[in-house]
Amino acid sequence: MSGAFKNCRTIMITGASRGLGLQMVETLVSGNFSPGKIIATARNPAGAQELQSLAGKYPSIHIITLDVVNQESIERAAQEVDQLVQEDGLNCLINNAGINVVANFETVTAEKMLDNFHTNSVAPLMITKAFLPLLRRAAAKGTGMGIHRSAVINITSLLGSVELNWGDRGNTFKWYPYRTSKSALNMVTRCMAVDLEDDGILCMALHPGWVRTDMGGQEAPLSTEESISSVLSMIGELTAKDHGSFLHYTGETLPW
Amino acid sequence: MSGAFKNCRTIMITGASRGLGLQMVETLVSGNFSPGKIIATARNPAGAQELQSLAGKYPSIHIITLDVVNQESIERAAQEVDQLVQEDGLNCLINNAGINVVANFETVTAEKMLDNFHTNSVAPLMITKAFLPLLRRAAAKGTGMGIHRSAVINITSLLGSVELNWGDRGNTFKWYPYRTSKSALNMVTRCMAVDLEDDGILCMALHPGWVRTDMGGQEAPLSTEESISSVLSMIGELTAKDHGSFLHYTGETLPW
Repeated sequence: MSGAFKNCRTIMITGASRGLGLQMVETLVSGNFSPGKIIATARNPAGAQELQSLAGKYPSIHIITLDVVNQESIERAAQEVDQLVQEDGLNCLINNAGINVVANFETVTAEKMLDNFHTNSVAPLMITKAFLPLLRRAAAKGTGMGIHRSAVINITSLLGSVELNWGDRGNTFKWYPYRTSKSALNMVTRCMAVDLEDDGILCMALHPGWVRTDMGGQEAPLSTEESISSVLSMIGELTAKDHGSFLHYTGETLPW
Repeated sequence: MSGAFKNCRTIMITGASRGLGLQMVETLVSGNFSPGKIIATARNPAGAQELQSLAGKYPSIHIITLDVVNQESIERAAQEVDQLVQEDGLNCLINNAGINVVANFETVTAEKMLDNFHTNSVAPLMITKAFLPLLRRAAAKGTGMGIHRSAVINITSLLGSVELNWGDRGNTFKWYPYRTSKSALNMVTRCMAVDLEDDGILCMALHPGWVRTDMGGQEAPLSTEESISSVLSMIGELTAKDHGSFLHYTGETLPW
């Protein structure tokens, strides 16, 4: 993992109870991220046994309850994190929590579209809004752009690329709710990048690859370790040139 | 208006009580579209006086009640239109109904995002699904692609282009719900284009320009007549090469 995280004192990862989020926490703590604070959020921390056990071993991990589609929960979490990070503010917010409400043209319903959109596109926006005072506090202490100052990373998907949804690529993964929610998240990312620029807060969208998680399935080519090792290296090296971008975990720029 | 509409026997326009939808109906009837059938939908036809008065003058206009966010209403409308078009099926479905729930980063809420997404992105999908048997019936009679056979036109916006939401363009119209809903509609369009291709049903997204309507405001550069005259000409000339595209009303391809 990049040494760049040495300059990132506080990082928050949503959806950290399993999959990519849990792996981010694990890779960060085992990569000598300490003495930084890792805020790992989960909808139901009591059921997040692996995360609890990691937190028992590493005091830099702080578990916070966050139901990303509940505004009260978002605001409560922001208050708790505020108490935790104090004058440091928040150097890096990783909006990682996401779901895949699988449905094709025949099986899709309005409810499935709305559910996936709420969790994957609206929640990162509402969370970023609620944590903006903490992001600004961190940003006020630095110059340039990156996680040494303040950054919002939205975990999106290549399946959210409208341009790439064509030909062979369009004929696999005909997931209307998921694809649409990730395109929408890409627009939310770009809107926020425009609005957060004056505060010096970097904002971008990152595709972590197709990974063997509960969501990605067992036929996926990448292990969570492989994906997150690249993802965190990339996040560590983000600079102003990456503001408002849509990047593959290998560093390649993806078309919208 | 293009003579191509001569070969389009049945056309349906959602949101036809005012603005661009009403203008489409008006331009079609005054452009010798008859004896084709124009199905003009409105949430509340009783309140759509201009549309009612047009329909009184031109018997080719058929007004159907359709609340685009209500699944029962969509299914009822599909049955009524089925009775109306019979063996002709539907040559052209224009998903025009849309709203702009204006909100910037400070004022946006989850509810505003969900409302705009439901009307602008989910409704065109659910309507196209419900009308698919009628679109297929028309498509089965023709060859090639276009409104002489069967086409789904989604009225989107340049503001839904993630790529163009940057620099000067990003600093105007910071409308999170609207921009996001139109990006999502673009993805829905592209997903449907992939799925409807085997049926020979053309599907594309069209930006009608910035128009002086209740939504566009009075400072917009285009009159509804100017916009719709170009829009209908373009729709009349669509062929297989435009399948899955995102076009400006002037014919230019827009970036996603």
